[in-house]
Amino acid sequence: MSNSHIFFGELIGTALLILLGGGVCAAVTLKRSKAEGAGWLAIAFGWGFAVLVAAYTANSLSGAHLNPAVTIAIAVKTGDWSHVPVYLAGQFLGAVVGAVLVWLAYLGQFNENDEPTLGIFATGPEIRNPVQNVITETVGTTVLCLLILTQGLNKELGLSGMGILITALTVVGIGLSLGGPTGYAINPFRDLGPRLVHSLLPIPKKGSSDWGYAWVPIVGPILGALLAGGIYNAAF
Amino acid sequence: MSNSHIFFGELIGTALLILLGGGVCAAVTLKRSKAEGAGWLAIAFGWGFAVLVAAYTANSLSGAHLNPAVTIAIAVKTGDWSHVPVYLAGQFLGAVVGAVLVWLAYLGQFNENDEPTLGIFATGPEIRNPVQNVITETVGTTVLCLLILTQGLNKELGLSGMGILITALTVVGIGLSLGGPTGYAINPFRDLGPRLVHSLLPIPKKGSSDWGYAWVPIVGPILGALLAGGIYNAAF
Amino acid sequence: MSNSHIFFGELIGTALLILLGGGVCAAVTLKRSKAEGAGWLAIAFGWGFAVLVAAYTANSLSGAHLNPAVTIAIAVKTGDWSHVPVYLAGQFLGAVVGAVLVWLAYLGQFNENDEPTLGIFATGPEIRNPVQNVITETVGTTVLCLLILTQGLNKELGLSGMGILITALTVVGIGLSLGGPTGYAINPFRDLGPRLVHSLLPIPKKGSSDWGYAWVPIVGPILGALLAGGIYNAAF
Amino acid sequence: MSNSHIFFGELIGTALLILLGGGVCAAVTLKRSKAEGAGWLAIAFGWGFAVLVAAYTANSLSGAHLNPAVTIAIAVKTGDWSHVPVYLAGQFLGAVVGAVLVWLAYLGQFNENDEPTLGIFATGPEIRNPVQNVITETVGTTVLCLLILTQGLNKELGLSGMGILITALTVVGIGLSLGGPTGYAINPFRDLGPRLVHSLLPIPKKGSSDWGYAWVPIVGPILGALLAGGIYNAAF
Repeated sequence: MSNSHIFFGELIGTALLILLGGGVCAAVTLKRSKAEGAGWLAIAFGWGFAVLVAAYTANSLSGAHLNPAVTIAIAVKTGDWSHVPVYLAGQFLGAVVGAVLVWLAYLGQFNENDEPTLGIFATGPEIRNPVQNVITETVGTTVLCLLILTQGLNKELGLSGMGILITALTVVGIGLSLGGPTGYAINPFRDLGPRLVHSLLPIPKKGSSDWGYAWVPIVGPILGALLAGGIYNAAF
Repeated sequence: MSNSHIFFGELIGTALLILLGGGVCAAVTLKRSKAEGAGWLAIAFGWGFAVLVAAYTANSLSGAHLNPAVTIAIAVKTGDWSHVPVYLAGQFLGAVVGAVLVWLAYLGQFNENDEPTLGIFATGPEIRNPVQNVITETVGTTVLCLLILTQGLNKELGLSGMGILITALTVVGIGLSLGGPTGYAINPFRDLGPRLVHSLLPIPKKGSSDWGYAWVPIVGPILGALLAGGIYNAAF
Repeated sequence: MSNSHIFFGELIGTALLILLGGGVCAAVTLKRSKAEGAGWLAIAFGWGFAVLVAAYTANSLSGAHLNPAVTIAIAVKTGDWSHVPVYLAGQFLGAVVGAVLVWLAYLGQFNENDEPTLGIFATGPEIRNPVQNVITETVGTTVLCLLILTQGLNKELGLSGMGILITALTVVGIGLSLGGPTGYAINPFRDLGPRLVHSLLPIPKKGSSDWGYAWVPIVGPILGALLAGGIYNAAF
Repeated sequence: MSNSHIFFGELIGTALLILLGGGVCAAVTLKRSKAEGAGWLAIAFGWGFAVLVAAYTANSLSGAHLNPAVTIAIAVKTGDWSHVPVYLAGQFLGAVVGAVLVWLAYLGQFNENDEPTLGIFATGPEIRNPVQNVITETVGTTVLCLLILTQGLNKELGLSGMGILITALTVVGIGLSLGGPTGYAINPFRDLGPRLVHSLLPIPKKGSSDWGYAWVPIVGPILGALLAGGIYNAAF
């Protein structure tokens, strides 16, 4: 894979991931959305199928990591860190683009907004306790990365074929089972990129971007990626 | 594929798509339906599985486009527009037939109807703003078409094997994530055909067919198809 | 396939189908069930996954028709009616066994019952109009049988591999989209067998077994099977 | 497979199963969880996808039984009981580890707890009647084990490829259809391990661990495993 394939694959894929993932949060929480109040099951399936769409679309270009934690876990497994920077660059830019697309798709609803909207863009804890919140994010990301590492990687170090469907359903499962305390970032840029966009967009009464919490969904998933890579190398 | 295979495949497939897609809208919204009030999650899975049933059934005949946007995106990719008219003819007639079948399947409920029923047949915006509504439909259709283009086409330019399952789950995802503002037509004839049927059927108190909005779910999806074809040709 | 394989395959498979399908109706409607009130989405997924479990389990023995309508549609397609009687015999006995197992699994709840329970065993219309009800059942069964006929049959005339998953999700879709008016029997013995069991079981305050409606979910699905076989032979 | 592969595979896999399965119970029932009140459908999908994640992750090491009932049913089928002890050892330890991880992931919520929490860890009957409860657990486990036995086992006597997806959806189906009376343990250690952890953890107002019921979800699933093995050997 060339660096340009990796960059554009991760950019397109992560943009789709955040568009559909942020989209379901917008759909379920914004007023005058047909899906308002559809609840946690809709959130969990929405994010899982966001992974499905994004990863199948981008897979042929970059192997569809779409998540720095996945990139790091794969690097720990393979020992090859040379492509990590270009993966991260595409992922970050994609997350920003995706968050802007959520805003465009729900522009009418956002323009009439009168409540805090950070929950559409970024994650936040129900009970604010950094150590606990990091643990929750670490556990969830370990589960995700261990599943991905064990499903085999194709020769270009991405998921292939049915592995993407399995990964997408895994993300549904993590959302249902481990999303309760912190909203399951399990992906540093899934949180950081949209949080940045939230801070910049002209949404009325949008509320705080809560930068004080922003390090938790970065540190937790990175720890989870390292832990998954370590478990994989030790046990499999 | 012969033109007659294409025509009948698209006719049967699109009829199934609209029967099951319109059917779930009827099931969830009509009084004296066992599924009344089942909510947005039921709508999103219902439309996604409508795609699944329709596309697997029609695939061997026509490749199961079932959507002018898909036909256009594939034509942009391949440069071959020669079969587009016969695809569109089958799709439009199928959409009309499917909408009539919804009415037949729910005839008792429709005959007792006392509320506007356009939402069972066609889409409509929560916030009426044509530019915004076109953007939302364009974004959703781009996601759909890009996924389809990247999943590979079989030698007859249709989806094959697991690609249909992936596409069906993608439609569930688009519904959950991007359906909130406009009800996600993402298919010009999915809206136009049933809207025409709505205007003709003898349903008591059926309400307006809202022809003023009818161009939006035509223009948005066509723009999305062109955009997806362009992105595909540029990046993949 | 020997007749004894067919008979026991259909018996075991149809028993599992009715156990899990009737089971979800019991789970959602009986008092003191943990799933009480889980709603139509649970019903639709419950019946679909009942098909999945039953058909994958029985497939190697009989090809897993589990439904007289499927057996008839396949006979119309192939012209071979020689095994139809043994299929039907296994299916009917299996439906009876499955309904008894539902009663055993929910015995505590049934023994405390104080409301009509026919809905756990058999289907019934929201609006009683035999012609309309037959039409709804015919439409639903045509969709099911056409999907099955087009998915290809293995050499023993049953579904194989991924075809069962597709069929199971199709049943979820038919439930969501076409189940509203009559509760989607789409299978003559799925209704007749459990209705018979309902009339015989010692359930307190179990209510009427409504034999006046029993012919509708037999005639409708048979018409649907013939229609699907005819469409298949004409168009595919 | 070496004994150490089996042990660590079952340990990791069963820990993941209980982490995600107990996790969804925590998510849906604990206060200040984002998924509070998501309902039975979330529970059923959560446990099914827990099986999916756990079994795909552990499959290459141990064949991913993750359940003494599955191990016993396979031993009845194959006649080889030599690896049963190491399977059970890994499963029990994994169930304990998984239950501790649920507590860690929801630590903040547990520390603020003021209601009985046994339902997050172990199963319990809606109507307490040991014979009835054993029957329900036996029926559910027979369905599970029969499905697994008929899906074919790979050369290492575990599930492979699509069989795991089918098994996971089967667990969703058993939850929806047969979970109402007892909460569907269908796995002795899924109940015993977390019940033990519940009795030891320092959770405020955690309530009784109800050891009087603990034998039911052991005996019922073992009977179901033996019954499934017997049916399989007799009929398939």
